[in-house]
Amino acid sequence: MKLLEERILKDGVIKEGNILKVDSFINHQIDTSLLHDMCNEWKESFKGKRVTKVLTIEASGIAMGTMLAYSYNVPLVFAKKTKTLNLDGDLYQASVDSFTHKTTNTVVVSKKFLNKDDHVIIVDDFLANGCALRGLIEICNQAGAKVEGIGIVIEKGFQDGGRSIREMGYQLESLAIIDYMDYKTGKIIFRH
Amino acid sequence: MKLLEERILKDGVIKEGNILKVDSFINHQIDTSLLHDMCNEWKESFKGKRVTKVLTIEASGIAMGTMLAYSYNVPLVFAKKTKTLNLDGDLYQASVDSFTHKTTNTVVVSKKFLNKDDHVIIVDDFLANGCALRGLIEICNQAGAKVEGIGIVIEKGFQDGGRSIREMGYQLESLAIIDYMDYKTGKIIFRH
Repeated sequence: MKLLEERILKDGVIKEGNILKVDSFINHQIDTSLLHDMCNEWKESFKGKRVTKVLTIEASGIAMGTMLAYSYNVPLVFAKKTKTLNLDGDLYQASVDSFTHKTTNTVVVSKKFLNKDDHVIIVDDFLANGCALRGLIEICNQAGAKVEGIGIVIEKGFQDGGRSIREMGYQLESLAIIDYMDYKTGKIIFRH
Repeated sequence: MKLLEERILKDGVIKEGNILKVDSFINHQIDTSLLHDMCNEWKESFKGKRVTKVLTIEASGIAMGTMLAYSYNVPLVFAKKTKTLNLDGDLYQASVDSFTHKTTNTVVVSKKFLNKDDHVIIVDDFLANGCALRGLIEICNQAGAKVEGIGIVIEKGFQDGGRSIREMGYQLESLAIIDYMDYKTGKIIFRH
């Protein structure tokens, strides 16, 4: 998505360790007009799909999830992160490692809000090694819900998540895929 | 807001300790259509106000914040919770006690995203003792930004937050104010 790539080049900040900070328009301050355009892009990609729920993970997925769910006129469900494995039988749960924070969380979704009749679009801000995403897919599998598509804002194409998720057969639509970035020069190369 | 009150009566669950669970439409699964109606209600209340930013706090404020910010065509800024006081001079910060979780967090906003030229609507899901809200107001004060109004989904009118915030002179618009609730009987009385 050209508008997003231009914005990443203009306002993204590369940090050592392959970190891309986009907190001026995606992650802390949110450009809601850009968010709206991104949702239109995803909707075009997923045209013809039946969608009953949008699923994301707190916190930074909630903004895009809200906008996309509203445009489909369906509920948003956001998975919650907890530090502990919860033994409550009313929850779907999966383990997720955070690339940025070097921690492991359990993500949970109440069984009330996802079931075998659901057709789900999963959205999230970043895709790197794919741990968060595999956690959300795992939760859909536990529910028997069908993952109709996956919308990612920024995929780090030099990490393994995108390839592995596509190999699993999912329609994964990343609005920007970064194949190379260098914090010393600020150079970013997008995949086209 | 009648639609919201009806929904609280239908789908809200009262728990011991004055906890109202609304996780089927506000907090975990989000009814985005209701959210849209709520934003229209707030916009009507704040008609004529100049708004340059919407400010909320992660995680459950992000959904309503996104929708409201989009409808004003302004950015959303969400304050982040951290466990530790951050000595980074680039952050506004305030201490916030959580009523539900019995913990104290520091909430932070980058100085890049709020300044003295900003006119802010603050939104959040719940108002009980007002700690989170006072933290967000404090952050606006540090920035020199003007708080033009405060939108709350559910105010617990039997706790002190709403009264104290109104006494400070802010226009506080709670879409539902609960004056009484009882987990044993399930009875809820709204203020009108």
